[in-house]
Amino acid sequence: MKNRIKRFFKSRKEKIGLPPGTLKFIGEKTNESTIEYVQFNASTHNIEQVNSINDITINNNNDVVNWIKISGLNVDIVEQLGKKFNFHNLMLEDILNTDQRPKIDDFKDYIYFVLKKHRYLDDSLSSQQISFILTPTFVITIEEDNSGLFNPILERIKNNQGYICTSKSDYLLYALIDVAIDNYFTLIEKLDEKIENARELSMQSLDNNKPLIALRNLKDDLNYLRKYILPTKEAVYKLERLETELIGESTDKFLRDLYDHINIISENLELYKDTVIGIREDYISNVNLKMNNVIQLLTIVSSVFIPLTFIAGVYGMNFKHMPELETENGYFIVLGFMALVALILLLYYKIKKWV
Amino acid sequence: MKNRIKRFFKSRKEKIGLPPGTLKFIGEKTNESTIEYVQFNASTHNIEQVNSINDITINNNNDVVNWIKISGLNVDIVEQLGKKFNFHNLMLEDILNTDQRPKIDDFKDYIYFVLKKHRYLDDSLSSQQISFILTPTFVITIEEDNSGLFNPILERIKNNQGYICTSKSDYLLYALIDVAIDNYFTLIEKLDEKIENARELSMQSLDNNKPLIALRNLKDDLNYLRKYILPTKEAVYKLERLETELIGESTDKFLRDLYDHINIISENLELYKDTVIGIREDYISNVNLKMNNVIQLLTIVSSVFIPLTFIAGVYGMNFKHMPELETENGYFIVLGFMALVALILLLYYKIKKWV
Amino acid sequence: MKNRIKRFFKSRKEKIGLPPGTLKFIGEKTNESTIEYVQFNASTHNIEQVNSINDITINNNNDVVNWIKISGLNVDIVEQLGKKFNFHNLMLEDILNTDQRPKIDDFKDYIYFVLKKHRYLDDSLSSQQISFILTPTFVITIEEDNSGLFNPILERIKNNQGYICTSKSDYLLYALIDVAIDNYFTLIEKLDEKIENARELSMQSLDNNKPLIALRNLKDDLNYLRKYILPTKEAVYKLERLETELIGESTDKFLRDLYDHINIISENLELYKDTVIGIREDYISNVNLKMNNVIQLLTIVSSVFIPLTFIAGVYGMNFKHMPELETENGYFIVLGFMALVALILLLYYKIKKWV
Amino acid sequence: MKNRIKRFFKSRKEKIGLPPGTLKFIGEKTNESTIEYVQFNASTHNIEQVNSINDITINNNNDVVNWIKISGLNVDIVEQLGKKFNFHNLMLEDILNTDQRPKIDDFKDYIYFVLKKHRYLDDSLSSQQISFILTPTFVITIEEDNSGLFNPILERIKNNQGYICTSKSDYLLYALIDVAIDNYFTLIEKLDEKIENARELSMQSLDNNKPLIALRNLKDDLNYLRKYILPTKEAVYKLERLETELIGESTDKFLRDLYDHINIISENLELYKDTVIGIREDYISNVNLKMNNVIQLLTIVSSVFIPLTFIAGVYGMNFKHMPELETENGYFIVLGFMALVALILLLYYKIKKWV
Amino acid sequence: MKNRIKRFFKSRKEKIGLPPGTLKFIGEKTNESTIEYVQFNASTHNIEQVNSINDITINNNNDVVNWIKISGLNVDIVEQLGKKFNFHNLMLEDILNTDQRPKIDDFKDYIYFVLKKHRYLDDSLSSQQISFILTPTFVITIEEDNSGLFNPILERIKNNQGYICTSKSDYLLYALIDVAIDNYFTLIEKLDEKIENARELSMQSLDNNKPLIALRNLKDDLNYLRKYILPTKEAVYKLERLETELIGESTDKFLRDLYDHINIISENLELYKDTVIGIREDYISNVNLKMNNVIQLLTIVSSVFIPLTFIAGVYGMNFKHMPELETENGYFIVLGFMALVALILLLYYKIKKWV
Repeated sequence: MKNRIKRFFKSRKEKIGLPPGTLKFIGEKTNESTIEYVQFNASTHNIEQVNSINDITINNNNDVVNWIKISGLNVDIVEQLGKKFNFHNLMLEDILNTDQRPKIDDFKDYIYFVLKKHRYLDDSLSSQQISFILTPTFVITIEEDNSGLFNPILERIKNNQGYICTSKSDYLLYALIDVAIDNYFTLIEKLDEKIENARELSMQSLDNNKPLIALRNLKDDLNYLRKYILPTKEAVYKLERLETELIGESTDKFLRDLYDHINIISENLELYKDTVIGIREDYISNVNLKMNNVIQLLTIVSSVFIPLTFIAGVYGMNFKHMPELETENGYFIVLGFMALVALILLLYYKIKKWV
Repeated sequence: MKNRIKRFFKSRKEKIGLPPGTLKFIGEKTNESTIEYVQFNASTHNIEQVNSINDITINNNNDVVNWIKISGLNVDIVEQLGKKFNFHNLMLEDILNTDQRPKIDDFKDYIYFVLKKHRYLDDSLSSQQISFILTPTFVITIEEDNSGLFNPILERIKNNQGYICTSKSDYLLYALIDVAIDNYFTLIEKLDEKIENARELSMQSLDNNKPLIALRNLKDDLNYLRKYILPTKEAVYKLERLETELIGESTDKFLRDLYDHINIISENLELYKDTVIGIREDYISNVNLKMNNVIQLLTIVSSVFIPLTFIAGVYGMNFKHMPELETENGYFIVLGFMALVALILLLYYKIKKWV
Repeated sequence: MKNRIKRFFKSRKEKIGLPPGTLKFIGEKTNESTIEYVQFNASTHNIEQVNSINDITINNNNDVVNWIKISGLNVDIVEQLGKKFNFHNLMLEDILNTDQRPKIDDFKDYIYFVLKKHRYLDDSLSSQQISFILTPTFVITIEEDNSGLFNPILERIKNNQGYICTSKSDYLLYALIDVAIDNYFTLIEKLDEKIENARELSMQSLDNNKPLIALRNLKDDLNYLRKYILPTKEAVYKLERLETELIGESTDKFLRDLYDHINIISENLELYKDTVIGIREDYISNVNLKMNNVIQLLTIVSSVFIPLTFIAGVYGMNFKHMPELETENGYFIVLGFMALVALILLLYYKIKKWV
Repeated sequence: MKNRIKRFFKSRKEKIGLPPGTLKFIGEKTNESTIEYVQFNASTHNIEQVNSINDITINNNNDVVNWIKISGLNVDIVEQLGKKFNFHNLMLEDILNTDQRPKIDDFKDYIYFVLKKHRYLDDSLSSQQISFILTPTFVITIEEDNSGLFNPILERIKNNQGYICTSKSDYLLYALIDVAIDNYFTLIEKLDEKIENARELSMQSLDNNKPLIALRNLKDDLNYLRKYILPTKEAVYKLERLETELIGESTDKFLRDLYDHINIISENLELYKDTVIGIREDYISNVNLKMNNVIQLLTIVSSVFIPLTFIAGVYGMNFKHMPELETENGYFIVLGFMALVALILLLYYKIKKWV
Repeated sequence: MKNRIKRFFKSRKEKIGLPPGTLKFIGEKTNESTIEYVQFNASTHNIEQVNSINDITINNNNDVVNWIKISGLNVDIVEQLGKKFNFHNLMLEDILNTDQRPKIDDFKDYIYFVLKKHRYLDDSLSSQQISFILTPTFVITIEEDNSGLFNPILERIKNNQGYICTSKSDYLLYALIDVAIDNYFTLIEKLDEKIENARELSMQSLDNNKPLIALRNLKDDLNYLRKYILPTKEAVYKLERLETELIGESTDKFLRDLYDHINIISENLELYKDTVIGIREDYISNVNLKMNNVIQLLTIVSSVFIPLTFIAGVYGMNFKHMPELETENGYFIVLGFMALVALILLLYYKIKKWV
């Protein structure tokens, strides 16, 4: 986690003093970008791969929904996009700053929506930024790399299937965000699995700190996700309330449904956080209970044998005149006395419920 | 608990990428569904069991209250319902997604209200979803299975008893939700019992982790219930404030009363959570107090006998020339000296209040 | 505490499925109810005991303030009251449900106000419900039993003393609630005393769990009181803001004063909760400090005498050839060496500040 | 602290049942009250000491600012004040109830403002109530005793210095409250000093509970102050927002500045609370670290010497036939073996990083 | 940290009783102040160093943006500024009180904005105050000393580069605040590094309190920063919402971007606080785990060898008649018995998973 955060702020630092709106990509460089230009309506669809944004001709034909799907962030493409559609520089900067908080920005003529996609890569959370732009006739999506996240939507368009083909670009925006947010359910299932593993680990290893490390990582991950889920929730809420002509009334119901989904995700994160804290508490209590049992054994053994050893020590002294040593059965009497002492002590512990 | 959550998200996952509004049942399959069609007014009532939603003829006669009582979730029935009443697809989807948060959705022509029923089955919390739909002349209830929850209402209608028979469908909705929420009082009583058991267990077993497990389960249950009670509270609150012609003014007082009930339930859950945390704290403190007493005994026994054993060890040495060994009463003097040392040490502990 | 809560919900449970508004008394049965009918104005007063609500004739004469003082809850009386004044069934039900949250209900023609009176009976908190109804010409108070709480007001009326005699029924309502709330100050003083006792107990007994039990009980009591004080505060706040003709403007100042009083009570409860938590923390820290001192002693004694005992053990071995044993002063040299070892160890502990 | 709280509620209790508005002084009796009557404007000033409120003639001359400065609470004076200015009885009662929360009360014709002055007397916090009344031409201040708090203002008036002399009574009110609130900065400096002392104490004494007591007292004090600072903040905020003709627009800026000051005080109290909690946590951690080091020593010494003592014990046995005892170098071989065992154990601890 | 706070309040204390608006510098004295007067528009720029505020001639020419850059706080300069621009005395006082909370004050004709710059100097946080004043034609910045913070802006102006040169004074204000706030990113990177160091330290040193001290300092620093970041956030939020003609609509977007930046900073501080608490928890758990392992060893060694030593002690007794001693193989039988006892005990611990 730390490395990711550090990297972001280093890049941020490089930008200090530069004029706001300076385009500079923050994030891992990807070599290739793919631009797909999708056009569809109820009766037909056309999907073509273009080399440059400039190759797209904007037609303000209301009969068709236009979707530009960009996979792979790249300063050039973003600049071309900015010129072509006359976008605000701050928005272009936000697209490239991949440490953006999820948010919605209303630029009157177009809406900018940004959220995160999280995945577990080799046990560490990776996060990628997805930007959505809604203009009256276009939906533009910009992913950090090509993850195939939007393939189900492409399929539906190709198959001319579902409500999506008969609706406008606002519904397309909703459907795309919906797919991105539904992705969190996969993540939550993964988290559930990791929590169960940590719980089992915490049952077994009471003498090393592996369970603590696993639980700490989980809690860090939950905190990290929470940092992005809460603003996403807020952004969807704002999107629904937005007073704009870009989003029709019929899409409102769907956005409210989206909001319900994020709420379920967010509540589960909270529940998981409580669960992780609870596992940790129980782990520590179990470690202590075990320790107590160990100490109890030490006490019982020590407090029984130390007095007995003392008695043996007394009769091991070399005094000339020790009457007991001379007696016929002294040895056996002492042995019996020792057994008696041990019995009384054990009885006492029994009463105290220590044995 | 975990299994239930996991199951839900697995199902959710299967749906990722499907168009929103795709009807798919999430939850345990029930084999049989029962549909009862109840009609009543102040003077008469008619209860019949029908095979299919299609067998019901919608009469918009204002003189009679219509109640369709569906027990046992089933995709077919929900689809028939949707076609018959022209319901929104998202609502139908919500009815089938049994991991819904309690909520209210106002679709202008009809209102959708959903809440949960919780029960202890073999010591683990089970939860079932109950959906309510209010149209101008119909109340529709959909339960996951046939629990007999609404039988008291059926009885009242059959006996032509109480205010319910002289009132409209909005009051019927209230009465049904009231029964569902009053069900929580049974749950709270069960929780009270479980908390008392955990308290007693925590008094008795200070050396194993059974009390910790019992308390952890209780806390998980309380967290889980809280996750559903809070949105239920919110939904009832919204229901009361709803600007709709579907609910008459005279029902408002009853809805406010309902809100008071959920408040009592919710406050008791909070109180119980505090109680469970308190029992846990006390359990751990008691374990530690016991441990301290054990260590104290170890210290007293060790610190008294270790010096004495040392003295005995000294006179057990085999040096040629040890004057004390030769004296007549050396042995008894040493014994006396040992007794003196022991007495002084015990006196010291007495003063320190350790014995 | 638990028994009280359990009892309430059991009764609640019995009511599940009954039509709302069914009158059923929840709480301890009291055998006798007393009804006093008080009439007074600036110049005169009349206090009479009546057998039944039906014996009272409602006169809407504005010149006199009417007060019906009912001590001892009883389903019959509440029913009579309902019929006589035409009260809403839900309100009558609330009067009988003695596990009501403190609240205010505005029924336009009359106002219903309910709060709690708490008392320590044999070290356990008891709580009683007091209902107030304000109609344009009547104030009705219903207590669970006859506690003499309102005697000071009766006295003032009898002595024709104070502002009360020249004012309307809204001021009487205020004066009655004021007396009920001022009663909390007695409770807070009692709590203060109990906290001081717990603090002293926690100073003295570091080896049993009596202080923990005392503190737990106190915290439970504070949580329990808080559960009732917060809604009381809210209810008074609403009472002051209420847009109603039943309460005159001149009474507003007094209600605001009342609100200040509950605020002081509520803040003190919070302060007490912090105090109780603080005492507990300190108790546990003191127990641990004592334990540490005990362990320290164990360590010092053991670590000094165990090496010495070892040395003595060496010279107690029975080897044929042990040159030291033959020397003239071997014994004394070894004794001296032992003393030296002991001194060095003690010095080391001194430097480490353990002695 | 406890005594103060107890005293207040005892007095409160005495008042239960008395008509509201009954004047009764709660607090420590002071024998002497001083009344100073100050009149000033831009050009002149007149300060005279009067024996009774009745000696003051109210002139509604707008050219001069009138200030009645009462030091030493006294039922008689408050009653005279009430009659002279026709003040509401509840306000007079509030002036005498010195356990009032800081607050502002707007009586249309006049404003009542009350706050607290806190001081450390012999290490325990004392608190005194200061009441301010603002009428169109008069400012009245009532202190519990004569603390000289307002002397700087008197000086400024005497020296005809500063903005105060050219301004109205609303500015005078501001200037007086400002002085009272600035007094908290002295308190915060004192708290800072006490926290530093507690920190140092907690570094040195790890074996007694003095640091715990010091930190507990500090936390109690901070909680106590917070209880008064928050309502003071609220009261100043309300004072600034008050829609009244008594306070001119030009004074608003100054009141906002006042609000900033209380904010700084309040934030510092929060920071101090965190600091005190942090010192406590560190103290407990340090105590435990020391304990761990002690136990580690015990373990090392015991686990090295106990096996060695056992070996010596074996060769101290008196069996007839023990071949080792007869060998020439048996003793030295055993000594060497013991040294080897000790070395191996110490090496093991070294590797484990325990030494 | 403490010293800084103490110093501030001492100075504050000196001012108690002084008329508000009295100009007195709180903070470290700086010897030299530099005043730079910058004028620029799209086509030209002029930067000159002046000796005194009085040397500047205010021209209300709308064609040029005027920026007065003051480095080094100084009572004289602030007084000259006040006279020249006719600023309110309270604002001048705020400029000099360097313990100001970040805030915005709207004086209708001009806006006052103040925030903090924090830096790590030799491992301790230093903080400097930066004041901004926006008048219709002027931007005035006042820094405590000359830190070169605004150099990038100066560069942009000199190079006639970026949007800044074609825009008004409101954009200049934004650009300056932006640079100041971006500075926090450097701080956060530094914090990140310190947290990593503390984490590593906490892994290595489990027996001294260095990690605790490092973590305490970090937490104090985070609390301290949070105290300034939250009001900064609030101030920027207010700046964006301000209804004023001083800030044009086109600048709003930039201010919202600024708000996003502070949000990222503030969220990272919260995340870091959680991280620091987590590291502390883990450190303490690791210390305890190590302690448990140590005690476990003690228990195993003691509980094995103490019984064996007892057996050796028994046969070391000097009783005349001890049959076992006489037998041929007694010694070896006892040795074998001892080995057996040891084996059984170790096996028992193995089963208990203690070894």
